[in-house]
Amino acid sequence: MIIVMKPNAAEQSIRQVVQYIENKGLKTHLSCGEEITIIGVVGDKTRLGIENFASFKDVDRVVPVSESYKLTNRKFHPQPTSVKVGNTVIGPETFTLMAGPCAVESEEQLMCIAKAVAKSGASILRGGAYKPRTSPYSFQGLEEDGLRYMQTAARETGLSTICEVVSPQAIEAAVKYVDMIQIGARNMQNFYLLKEAGRSGLPVLLKRGLSATIEEWLNAAEYIVAEGNPDVVLCERGIRTFETATRNTLDISAVAVLREKTHLPVIVDPSHSTGFYKYVPPMAKAAAACGADGLMIEVHNDPPHALSDGPQSLTFEKFEKLCTELVPFAALSGRAFRAAKESV
Amino acid sequence: MIIVMKPNAAEQSIRQVVQYIENKGLKTHLSCGEEITIIGVVGDKTRLGIENFASFKDVDRVVPVSESYKLTNRKFHPQPTSVKVGNTVIGPETFTLMAGPCAVESEEQLMCIAKAVAKSGASILRGGAYKPRTSPYSFQGLEEDGLRYMQTAARETGLSTICEVVSPQAIEAAVKYVDMIQIGARNMQNFYLLKEAGRSGLPVLLKRGLSATIEEWLNAAEYIVAEGNPDVVLCERGIRTFETATRNTLDISAVAVLREKTHLPVIVDPSHSTGFYKYVPPMAKAAAACGADGLMIEVHNDPPHALSDGPQSLTFEKFEKLCTELVPFAALSGRAFRAAKESV
Amino acid sequence: MIIVMKPNAAEQSIRQVVQYIENKGLKTHLSCGEEITIIGVVGDKTRLGIENFASFKDVDRVVPVSESYKLTNRKFHPQPTSVKVGNTVIGPETFTLMAGPCAVESEEQLMCIAKAVAKSGASILRGGAYKPRTSPYSFQGLEEDGLRYMQTAARETGLSTICEVVSPQAIEAAVKYVDMIQIGARNMQNFYLLKEAGRSGLPVLLKRGLSATIEEWLNAAEYIVAEGNPDVVLCERGIRTFETATRNTLDISAVAVLREKTHLPVIVDPSHSTGFYKYVPPMAKAAAACGADGLMIEVHNDPPHALSDGPQSLTFEKFEKLCTELVPFAALSGRAFRAAKESV
Amino acid sequence: MIIVMKPNAAEQSIRQVVQYIENKGLKTHLSCGEEITIIGVVGDKTRLGIENFASFKDVDRVVPVSESYKLTNRKFHPQPTSVKVGNTVIGPETFTLMAGPCAVESEEQLMCIAKAVAKSGASILRGGAYKPRTSPYSFQGLEEDGLRYMQTAARETGLSTICEVVSPQAIEAAVKYVDMIQIGARNMQNFYLLKEAGRSGLPVLLKRGLSATIEEWLNAAEYIVAEGNPDVVLCERGIRTFETATRNTLDISAVAVLREKTHLPVIVDPSHSTGFYKYVPPMAKAAAACGADGLMIEVHNDPPHALSDGPQSLTFEKFEKLCTELVPFAALSGRAFRAAKESV
Repeated sequence: MIIVMKPNAAEQSIRQVVQYIENKGLKTHLSCGEEITIIGVVGDKTRLGIENFASFKDVDRVVPVSESYKLTNRKFHPQPTSVKVGNTVIGPETFTLMAGPCAVESEEQLMCIAKAVAKSGASILRGGAYKPRTSPYSFQGLEEDGLRYMQTAARETGLSTICEVVSPQAIEAAVKYVDMIQIGARNMQNFYLLKEAGRSGLPVLLKRGLSATIEEWLNAAEYIVAEGNPDVVLCERGIRTFETATRNTLDISAVAVLREKTHLPVIVDPSHSTGFYKYVPPMAKAAAACGADGLMIEVHNDPPHALSDGPQSLTFEKFEKLCTELVPFAALSGRAFRAAKESV
Repeated sequence: MIIVMKPNAAEQSIRQVVQYIENKGLKTHLSCGEEITIIGVVGDKTRLGIENFASFKDVDRVVPVSESYKLTNRKFHPQPTSVKVGNTVIGPETFTLMAGPCAVESEEQLMCIAKAVAKSGASILRGGAYKPRTSPYSFQGLEEDGLRYMQTAARETGLSTICEVVSPQAIEAAVKYVDMIQIGARNMQNFYLLKEAGRSGLPVLLKRGLSATIEEWLNAAEYIVAEGNPDVVLCERGIRTFETATRNTLDISAVAVLREKTHLPVIVDPSHSTGFYKYVPPMAKAAAACGADGLMIEVHNDPPHALSDGPQSLTFEKFEKLCTELVPFAALSGRAFRAAKESV
Repeated sequence: MIIVMKPNAAEQSIRQVVQYIENKGLKTHLSCGEEITIIGVVGDKTRLGIENFASFKDVDRVVPVSESYKLTNRKFHPQPTSVKVGNTVIGPETFTLMAGPCAVESEEQLMCIAKAVAKSGASILRGGAYKPRTSPYSFQGLEEDGLRYMQTAARETGLSTICEVVSPQAIEAAVKYVDMIQIGARNMQNFYLLKEAGRSGLPVLLKRGLSATIEEWLNAAEYIVAEGNPDVVLCERGIRTFETATRNTLDISAVAVLREKTHLPVIVDPSHSTGFYKYVPPMAKAAAACGADGLMIEVHNDPPHALSDGPQSLTFEKFEKLCTELVPFAALSGRAFRAAKESV
Repeated sequence: MIIVMKPNAAEQSIRQVVQYIENKGLKTHLSCGEEITIIGVVGDKTRLGIENFASFKDVDRVVPVSESYKLTNRKFHPQPTSVKVGNTVIGPETFTLMAGPCAVESEEQLMCIAKAVAKSGASILRGGAYKPRTSPYSFQGLEEDGLRYMQTAARETGLSTICEVVSPQAIEAAVKYVDMIQIGARNMQNFYLLKEAGRSGLPVLLKRGLSATIEEWLNAAEYIVAEGNPDVVLCERGIRTFETATRNTLDISAVAVLREKTHLPVIVDPSHSTGFYKYVPPMAKAAAACGADGLMIEVHNDPPHALSDGPQSLTFEKFEKLCTELVPFAALSGRAFRAAKESV
């Protein structure tokens, strides 16, 4: 950590900062310019409330030098992680397709979609049983029934399964039926839920919050891993910006940034980020081309009548076509596209 | 709701949309331009999945005409609401000051701050016992002990109390000790927690999410009210933008927009929005001038040594000075500034 | 400037950076932690391409310590500046109202509006003769004719005048007719135009760019002052964010931040920032309360038939009412509200 | 255009709107719901100031139905355009690489870079001679000398050339030396410069403004085309968001959106959008994969000593490697990668 003092800071102000730090058992290094003095801090900074220095007299700025996330930091864990989900594995040598409806609507609907996406090349079935909806009057999901249908569909098709959770009760139920849980964008900084997910024993897909920086996202992942659960996969799903031509703005460069900052696998959700089925295939290819470990895509048997997010869902035909087109892109990144499925 | 068809949409596409709507028991009005046909929908739209129309053939756009929030909507409840909190009342004729430390650190610290803010003119004591922190390694709060100190401080000073909750357990504990609960920015769309808050029996302060639109915010409030709890106060605390000179960007015009859209009281938090104590007094005055029902301000006995958010906390002297300066601003808005306190 | 090396940077990488800096005639201070070495740079940094260090081997980050704007920086010019415009003065002891139509539409229209706003308390008449419009098919302004009407209206009413310029030709024309020129949001980083404005001899109102940081804004002002023109007034007019309830988001805290960073006067435009006349009065009061040096407000004789920006324009009655309401707010900030006008 | 009246709008308010529209020679269609009346407008809306309706009594909202850009709109020009630049062609069957230094620093530097990028597969040489810099004290470019070096380098290597222009004088000079001019992000809504570019006779690369919506961007292109110059290429270069891990946020989905909305070619600039050389190759591949017509990439002989934007520049080796890797991606999109160069 570096503390930059104001130009011509009083000798006493500098001494006060130095004493505060040394009283906590850390060391300081002074660099005195003609106008500006800089104080470097050496040692375990978790003992200091970093932001507090801004209230000390004559302090201009505090610059953190090292990241606050440790277990998820690539600096301390240079090899990329792979995460086992049911009978498949995410990263670093596979390209994983998660596909399915936004919301589970009925057993028949889910089974029909599961068969179609398995046939086309998906290895994980997604389906929402607990839906966080903006309005309390929108469809909120089938809850435990939905989870049960997921399990049945998995057995029938050999797919692994993932479902979003929104509460401790939902986690408790999910543990009984599915292979992976998802923390959605709106709950990315619901630290209470993150801790519960960290104790669930299931791998966790952590979606990026609508306006979360990459650093906050990795700190959120740190909450899960710090509870003893190393099986976290990150999912870029678009951020909120001023642009309204797409539902959100897919921050595709996050894939490259995360590759450098963390060892965790990274997948991309082109459905929620764009909000429109026509933009899903080009964005799916972009994600595959820049090194993502997989995709999460919404597929529906009848998009116009979907109970949630119809406009961004692919039909079976469009999904089948996309899967075929993705094969050479996965190959160019040196990834086994259908490895997961073929292992069934 | 209005459905705008694409230029020269096929006759059959139009018929398909109309039939879908009428099958759900609603009526349609067609407006046929030379190129573009527009379909007005009359009736209870909650039966339709509004976004689905975007997947129908030849549909260009769907334009909602009425808001999805009802109970919090000023259209259906033109009189401004007042919310009773302990022995004080928020809005529309009072100007309420909530003040206190970001985090409760000890009984002595809290008591010392409570006495100071009560003396200066606050009517509600704020203090965090459950702290949602970006990093799992930062101080997370004293939990139930913190709540207990809040209760003690309230008894001693006559202040009412508010505390943030982050989980159902925290709500359960809060009900025993404090007068109002707060849902923080990061949990604004934690719908599960909103419902629990709606059933708590306590008034709720709902902070705006970092990147929540005003419409999403009112829908979040609707979750609480829909559970039977009408006592919701909204708190603007800054939104996330590209500007880094302040911690967040205080969206002061939200006060004016909310005044038009909802009957609920609105307060402003100049501490979290600016992140810097020097900017708190001018922003507090701006909020009072434009019609806010009150303020939430962080005050600390020793900001440089605060365990959380030191740089944005006011000292006792600065808070006292600000309170004095605010009196004429409250008067200009026709509000009783110290009404609440004097009622003690 | 501080250069933070990567953890365990090679001895040689550190030496390379140090040599590069010392070859340019500056001094370095090393602060060597257990893992991280920090290099402080002392001397005239304009000789270094600051961003280049990021390409040196083992460099982690470069942290500028001092701001790149000098002439507009309060650190080097602690007293607030006042700017003379025609027969009036902006800041620091006056509260200046600029008012008038978005676009000059005809001589009669302008004269009628000028009389009304002068009567209510404005001291400067605003009116667009060159309109930067999103679409090439929208009304683009009366150009030199518009400027001529401004001059006539000024003579008749005693008001000073301001007009936006969009090109060197427009500046050349403006010099002949008006007292102050305005650089609009879309041209805030049109550095060519800024330099021309700096050489115009007229005071300049510099509006903030839609997504300009405060630091970029002050650097843009520096372009004007560096050409020898110290008479710059800054105008906060809303920034672009995700929120669509208002046309832009008024960054009211920019007033407080600018007060600390620069000695230049700061005014607020509540019309463009909110885009809606109902929100103009509360935002005008907020600006007056937090210490702005004045306001720029759109007033129109017949808003529904305005050729530009009708919805945000005040009628004469609404403007008159607002002026009356603003008087005590200006007084609370210790400013003479009608000083300018009374000097006529 | 659709005008939505407020719930229970007065009969007279509705009549007033209808009359205003019909007086302008357009037709109206009324759709009367139980509470809400909707007025459809048929005819040439350019005669109406669309935003004005918001000021009419009882009007709730105005919804534009058709886009304001016409000549650049794919609806009216379904075939994708190709733009000839010197001896090469951009879109729709080629994949064009523009490469070169951010700023032209000397004749030798430019020649050395030109030879390297030509050898690796670029067909257009980029190089800044007029640099828009945030601070007036940063290097501002070699101006006409820089253009002259561009011409020399082009003759020697067979590359076509592009250079940013910032003023009418720069356009005048550029016409003499280079094959294409660029309007930079900061000038995207400098409508005066857009018109001059439209009259220059040269093809124009129009970069997206930092916070420009896609609709504003297409309207800016419309300014150029409306002056009689159809040769416009759009360049996505990142938008401004809250995320600071990258210099800007590359809005990769803009490529897909533009493909649907306009017939103009679209290229991507991964250098300015990410600001960091390590992120350039993955983003270049993403752009190629999702259907961009080409890339603009910064290449420098000695990035650490570049006078501008060193950290985001590729070395010759890295650029050569990237070109080789891009070949199969261009092929997957059915584009001829080196077509342009081979035509030399």
